[in-house]
Amino acid sequence: MNEGTQQAEPRRRGRRAGGEDTKAALLAAAREVFMQRGYEGATVRSIAARAGVDAAMVNHWFGGKEGLFAKAVLQLPVDPNTLVDHLLSGPREHIGERIVRTFLGVWDPIGGGQFAALMRSVTAHDQVADVLRDFFVGTLLKKVVAGIGTEDRPELRATLAASQIFGMGMVRYVVKFEPLASTDVETMVQAVAPNLQRYLTGDIG
Amino acid sequence: MNEGTQQAEPRRRGRRAGGEDTKAALLAAAREVFMQRGYEGATVRSIAARAGVDAAMVNHWFGGKEGLFAKAVLQLPVDPNTLVDHLLSGPREHIGERIVRTFLGVWDPIGGGQFAALMRSVTAHDQVADVLRDFFVGTLLKKVVAGIGTEDRPELRATLAASQIFGMGMVRYVVKFEPLASTDVETMVQAVAPNLQRYLTGDIG
Repeated sequence: MNEGTQQAEPRRRGRRAGGEDTKAALLAAAREVFMQRGYEGATVRSIAARAGVDAAMVNHWFGGKEGLFAKAVLQLPVDPNTLVDHLLSGPREHIGERIVRTFLGVWDPIGGGQFAALMRSVTAHDQVADVLRDFFVGTLLKKVVAGIGTEDRPELRATLAASQIFGMGMVRYVVKFEPLASTDVETMVQAVAPNLQRYLTGDIG
Repeated sequence: MNEGTQQAEPRRRGRRAGGEDTKAALLAAAREVFMQRGYEGATVRSIAARAGVDAAMVNHWFGGKEGLFAKAVLQLPVDPNTLVDHLLSGPREHIGERIVRTFLGVWDPIGGGQFAALMRSVTAHDQVADVLRDFFVGTLLKKVVAGIGTEDRPELRATLAASQIFGMGMVRYVVKFEPLASTDVETMVQAVAPNLQRYLTGDIG
């Protein structure tokens, strides 16, 4: 509480503050435009224009539309696109394991609070659920489907995997049911990965 | 599960209006007391006293503390306790299937809106998450653990199953990712039941 509350203002007011302001304006504009037009309908150009920023800065700061969306709407600590690339990059028969490790690796260190905040936002605002769905089904899903290369109902498989991932987050970080909430990563991998693997590449009936 | 579970009430229309007011008062009192004291700490006596109602009416109307909690806090359309009894009553090797059928049988007909409302409440209010955890871990979990009769880490298994159930509800009713959101019940059973079955009675590593 008293760690330098008073002397918190040494930062230079020059370019950095200006950059932060512009970033904040971009994020605010992005939230508005994504909510109004959905993920697919929103353009980087229109978001940048609303914030009075050059569109090139979106790529510079956020790596493009997906990164901006992840930061502005989902408030994810990582770009989901990069994450999916990572998941799809290793051996196909270990994708379940990679998903569990990556998911817990992202959220465990920050205590799951941001996951809970995302779920709060998704459940409280239909618009957030809509734009998340638009983003997931329109963008991530296609990548995952192409990446896993399973011919039998790949879209259903991807959404089944999503259900297990959402649920793992809900039980671990939101409702915190024990013992799952504090079970170590290795045990979680052994328990959950085969189920994800079955959804993505196994026999689902 | 609806084989005569709840038809004990030939309800007379005369007393109904007054009864509805008293019921509403009981539900409001229950919400307060459960939030203040948690599921375990709340007593039927204290809730009834706060509502100015005879404690016997709680049993009469809600079948006891669990039923009152389910209605007042979770706003579930069914008593979770009755539901768990049903799930545990059939062959052990088909419990995964019964869970999927029962879950979708409860929420699909009402369009999932109440499930979404419950998730909104759970994510928005720490107290609701706390009391749900208290109820789940303190009451339901013990029943499920005793009922499935698996010796290896039954509590972890029950929370793993909970993760898949929560996630199925989130993807089907809250974020509504297609195709899972509108996949027919039989396909859902074939896809999801074996994963639940593995969590509850299979090899989880």
